[in-house]
Amino acid sequence: MKKQELIQQIREKRTFLCVGLDTDIKKIPAHLLAERDPVFSFNKAIIDATAPYCVAYKPNLAFYESMGVKGWTAFEATVEYLRTNYPNHFVIADAKRGDIGNTSAMYARTFFEEMNLDALTVAPYMGEDSVVPFLQYRDKWVVLLALTSNKGSHDFQLTADTEGERLFEKVLRKSQEWGNDENMMYVVGATQGRMFEAVRRIVPNHFLLVPGIGAQGGSLEEVCKWGMNGDCGLLVNSSRAIIYADGTEAFAEAAAGEAKKVAEEMGRLLDNA
Amino acid sequence: MKKQELIQQIREKRTFLCVGLDTDIKKIPAHLLAERDPVFSFNKAIIDATAPYCVAYKPNLAFYESMGVKGWTAFEATVEYLRTNYPNHFVIADAKRGDIGNTSAMYARTFFEEMNLDALTVAPYMGEDSVVPFLQYRDKWVVLLALTSNKGSHDFQLTADTEGERLFEKVLRKSQEWGNDENMMYVVGATQGRMFEAVRRIVPNHFLLVPGIGAQGGSLEEVCKWGMNGDCGLLVNSSRAIIYADGTEAFAEAAAGEAKKVAEEMGRLLDNA
Repeated sequence: MKKQELIQQIREKRTFLCVGLDTDIKKIPAHLLAERDPVFSFNKAIIDATAPYCVAYKPNLAFYESMGVKGWTAFEATVEYLRTNYPNHFVIADAKRGDIGNTSAMYARTFFEEMNLDALTVAPYMGEDSVVPFLQYRDKWVVLLALTSNKGSHDFQLTADTEGERLFEKVLRKSQEWGNDENMMYVVGATQGRMFEAVRRIVPNHFLLVPGIGAQGGSLEEVCKWGMNGDCGLLVNSSRAIIYADGTEAFAEAAAGEAKKVAEEMGRLLDNA
Repeated sequence: MKKQELIQQIREKRTFLCVGLDTDIKKIPAHLLAERDPVFSFNKAIIDATAPYCVAYKPNLAFYESMGVKGWTAFEATVEYLRTNYPNHFVIADAKRGDIGNTSAMYARTFFEEMNLDALTVAPYMGEDSVVPFLQYRDKWVVLLALTSNKGSHDFQLTADTEGERLFEKVLRKSQEWGNDENMMYVVGATQGRMFEAVRRIVPNHFLLVPGIGAQGGSLEEVCKWGMNGDCGLLVNSSRAIIYADGTEAFAEAAAGEAKKVAEEMGRLLDNA
């Protein structure tokens, strides 16, 4: 998907919500366990219910891998379902991959050739030649970790060098030599609040993937105040608060209700901006 | 596997070689493509041929994921084969995983409960709470990226803070608050040469996983000179130079030949130490 197409979707639908498909077979409603592929059945129902209220979906590979072959099957089926029925939704594989060059190229083959995803989260620790192989695909996106939502972000990401530049700032700055705002996004946790200002000083035009509203406690209003740009420039993710809103046969409608609430708040924030 | 058991294996077999099972279906001998599971057949033959000359195996997930469900099946079959037939070999899943706490816990479930691997490579960028979930398992190991073998290691890992501590040194130092030398190892690329001295100043007793001899050009002799400790303390990985030594029906014997050469050199280096 091109940047302009994503911006268009946000404008038309008045939402920048990304629904995280962090589907844990131990948490889905019990009645689904009778299905041939319970995880895929859950995802399909969640997608059908929430699609009007979001512009993106983000399955996290950890949850699918924990079920081995069955999990990979459910993941592939989910991506196929999205690609076939919701071609205008932006699909991110949250895998936080990254390795030496030839190995990153294999990961890129998996997610961008075998499966036609729009985007993949990538870890920056190993530097340029570990990231560049993912940038070789037209209309595909790298979503690079920058300032993450968790407490451990304080361990290394905020360390300043002798010139005062913090690690996350160095990641934002250096990576602009590798890609641009039409093929790179950055992960900045909603919990980071005012830090979005520092991020925007370095990357005013890039899209930011923002996890951490909902269960992790970040504030959507603060994220927008400090992080929104003229094109919106945000994809804000929520998973557990939406997909596990209800544990009965009413799970999909409940998810739709939660997604709709978030979308309505986003619509107001877009109007105010 | 406990640390003492690994040290014992190295002493008895006079080798600290780890064979990397970076199995690319596009590179294995053509005659194997007629097999029901060509990648597993390749791995099985390589394992049987090289087992006397190494103490560890390291499949890299990128190669298996690129084949989707078939790849995950081949990966599971390979690990199962190793666990059943070579219980004294140390098996590392090279996956470079890491995410927020509850998600890392899912990854840990996959590799340490569903599949009974000995060790998993983990990326440090997201800090403590992204790594600690992997440290909750008895006799299992986290292999944390520290100073990697690739050119991009220069982008962030060598950046010094205001006190002169470089990022890879901070990773080595801080992570000792999370685990110890009985459940953590570190990745230090063979290409890093004399940098092993700086590493050993901070982690004298930890095992180091050392990729990058063979195709990447690192020197085994330098690695040993600067990186070996009283228990050896090294697992040196080679993949392509061994597993692709030959592209015909003689591939397994050729792999054995290459592994034997490396093991003999390692035996000499152990004797000299």
